[in-house]
Amino acid sequence: MGQHNKKTMTIDATDQAAGGGLLNRRFFLTSTLLTSAALASAKSAFGQEMVGQGQEDWTLYPGSDALEYGELSRFEVGRVKKLVGEVSGGRTATSAGRTPHHNLMGTITPSGLHFEVTHHGIPDIDPDRHKVVIHGMVKNPLKFDINALENYPTVTREYFMECSGNSRICYEDKPTKQHLDMTHGLVSGSQWTGVLLSTLLDECGISKDAKWIIAEGADSGSLSRSIPIDKALKDTMIAIYQNGERLRPGQGYPMRVLNPGFEGNTSVKWVRSLYVTDKPVMSRFETSKYTDKLYDGNALQFSLELDVKSVITRPSNAMSLAKHGLYEVTGLAWSGRGKIARVEVSADGGKTWAEAAIEGPVNSIMLTRFRIPWMWNGTPAILQSRAIDEFGRVQPTRKELISARGNKAFYHFHAIHSWGVDAKGGIEHVYA
Amino acid sequence: MGQHNKKTMTIDATDQAAGGGLLNRRFFLTSTLLTSAALASAKSAFGQEMVGQGQEDWTLYPGSDALEYGELSRFEVGRVKKLVGEVSGGRTATSAGRTPHHNLMGTITPSGLHFEVTHHGIPDIDPDRHKVVIHGMVKNPLKFDINALENYPTVTREYFMECSGNSRICYEDKPTKQHLDMTHGLVSGSQWTGVLLSTLLDECGISKDAKWIIAEGADSGSLSRSIPIDKALKDTMIAIYQNGERLRPGQGYPMRVLNPGFEGNTSVKWVRSLYVTDKPVMSRFETSKYTDKLYDGNALQFSLELDVKSVITRPSNAMSLAKHGLYEVTGLAWSGRGKIARVEVSADGGKTWAEAAIEGPVNSIMLTRFRIPWMWNGTPAILQSRAIDEFGRVQPTRKELISARGNKAFYHFHAIHSWGVDAKGGIEHVYA
Repeated sequence: MGQHNKKTMTIDATDQAAGGGLLNRRFFLTSTLLTSAALASAKSAFGQEMVGQGQEDWTLYPGSDALEYGELSRFEVGRVKKLVGEVSGGRTATSAGRTPHHNLMGTITPSGLHFEVTHHGIPDIDPDRHKVVIHGMVKNPLKFDINALENYPTVTREYFMECSGNSRICYEDKPTKQHLDMTHGLVSGSQWTGVLLSTLLDECGISKDAKWIIAEGADSGSLSRSIPIDKALKDTMIAIYQNGERLRPGQGYPMRVLNPGFEGNTSVKWVRSLYVTDKPVMSRFETSKYTDKLYDGNALQFSLELDVKSVITRPSNAMSLAKHGLYEVTGLAWSGRGKIARVEVSADGGKTWAEAAIEGPVNSIMLTRFRIPWMWNGTPAILQSRAIDEFGRVQPTRKELISARGNKAFYHFHAIHSWGVDAKGGIEHVYA
Repeated sequence: MGQHNKKTMTIDATDQAAGGGLLNRRFFLTSTLLTSAALASAKSAFGQEMVGQGQEDWTLYPGSDALEYGELSRFEVGRVKKLVGEVSGGRTATSAGRTPHHNLMGTITPSGLHFEVTHHGIPDIDPDRHKVVIHGMVKNPLKFDINALENYPTVTREYFMECSGNSRICYEDKPTKQHLDMTHGLVSGSQWTGVLLSTLLDECGISKDAKWIIAEGADSGSLSRSIPIDKALKDTMIAIYQNGERLRPGQGYPMRVLNPGFEGNTSVKWVRSLYVTDKPVMSRFETSKYTDKLYDGNALQFSLELDVKSVITRPSNAMSLAKHGLYEVTGLAWSGRGKIARVEVSADGGKTWAEAAIEGPVNSIMLTRFRIPWMWNGTPAILQSRAIDEFGRVQPTRKELISARGNKAFYHFHAIHSWGVDAKGGIEHVYA
């Protein structure tokens, strides 16, 4: 029966990859899902019913014509970003929109759902009146509008972006009841197209004494960050397209800095000035914020590169397990330094680990999706993922991270995340 | 000066890659753009002015808060699909929305701009009432709604999709004055997540005598196509996510067939039935349409795999060249069989060819972007691109294609596309 040469679905010792029901990541490729139990009960291994198909209204009359811009179905409109704002002086100061990864799949985040954190609101910029100027320690100060940038040699690359405040709720004493958008909603992945900053600096002719570039946005607070010159010359991009089309306003339209693998705040949106200099600017956003408090009360500055990290996006506490049986455990892994080499998954709170499947090609400094089959038999379980990058950096446990960073830490939480599954299939965030 | 060890921008024999000003694809990496001419004239090599930066209104007051779903800037709303409809009996019969590749960059097409061709309109489907049934020559007929599919093992893959009618206007006797959306707007690229059809067929237990699967949509015309069983078991997917989020209605929400590399019409949207059988159904869309008329008046059926093809997206006839100097020539290449191995570009109508740069990783059966620097000195030019896939298939000239396919051909136009550039920088579609 069938065209494949597979064994009928029975789970034996060679299928088991770790405790708590984790199966070999190739299980789905080597086992047929057709079971005699399914035939007897008129239910499949995944519980599908074998019944007929009705005629629904939408098959009875013609649908709408093609659209200039196709939006989401009206049945999907609830799958939006979680909004969080800090009110100050009667209006929102900082506001954030957090990506709902529990509703998403793949590795590209839709541009409309890419996280955004804005400290001074999203400006409504007319691209014909916006320019970025490169000046300071250069021979040849130049300014560029978007039409000018369109004429330069471009690159297209996939990168994740992450706010260093992502997951900071996980430093708190108790696990949160909130969903994945509140714990891991400040990381997203996109395909970006733009001009390498090195190309523009090259044309301006930077001084050999240049050490930093101060990037400043055209938002009302002129958000500024200092970028090390080595980074700027290596892979910093002035991005003008995201996922094929022009940047959206919340992402820095018409142009933004993109520092691959660095904390998101350095990737200055709506960039209007790039000032080449020999020292950092010590702006508000690299002094009062985005520094790491240490045990002794001092703060570490310019901890820019993001750590190796992962999270299981499904199952998560936004759902519950309705039946015993097979599930796919899937999630995202990323590293600010390079490629993800391996992701391991545990169903027993870290006692045993199994290697998950990663679907290539794996891009450097980009979200990487992992998947592993899991047979849940109703026993309480603790699901965890642990990422390892190509430089051998291993995602730590929460205990290890807090022990290293101290209890005053706020940014750069990147420890293993745990989902507790109870006997009824309920799921909640736990510390384990 | 500068941190790089580059030569000052002068163009010599080693930089030239082909006639008409095409430069070595590594030119931008090895030459510095700073010229003494730029310094003397207060203009850069790309023509940027060296002047100060003004203060615009949007820097003077706080912008809007973060958004649940970030849309495009109001300054970008014109960059939409081109709509084309065939009216019949007082209403639109077939309607199409065509991707404006002359406005886009990268290789991912935004979901809202992915082309769509619909013969019976876009149904407004409630996902809780939609199911796909797999039946016919199976042991175990099963039905699946989207929640069921979410529990299955998934795959994430990037694929282009192309209507076999894409570029058919190029069969006509005279070149068109219309833009790229009318000549190449029926191809798009996405990251798709779904369940392999082989996984579902496996669970149903298909008969060894099964040869075809008849896919039928839940649109009002029940669009049906026959899929060879070998394809279905190889890589056909039931897609439920596009570019990270659920499919949009025009793309088959809540679920569609996706046959990688096959003509788009076989990737049945809103799929409601997959009937396993031993012969094709000979539906309207594989008899009256989507067949290839031959010289003798007979028609070739089931010419499903798409050819190797490419087009220069910039410059195109949607723009003109405002100055003499450096330009980036860029475009897209794709093959229904596998990876793009090489793209060559000509600036002299095919007399000489230079190899363009391809930015990796190159995905199989996906849009691939190529780029090459071009120094335009005001001489009339004819820009062309020619793609070669990993199997050595070479994109033909228009003359070669028409000579092979005959003058009654309608579908599968995939010949080299030519942009004529006149002495004033005007650009138009030409046959060359």
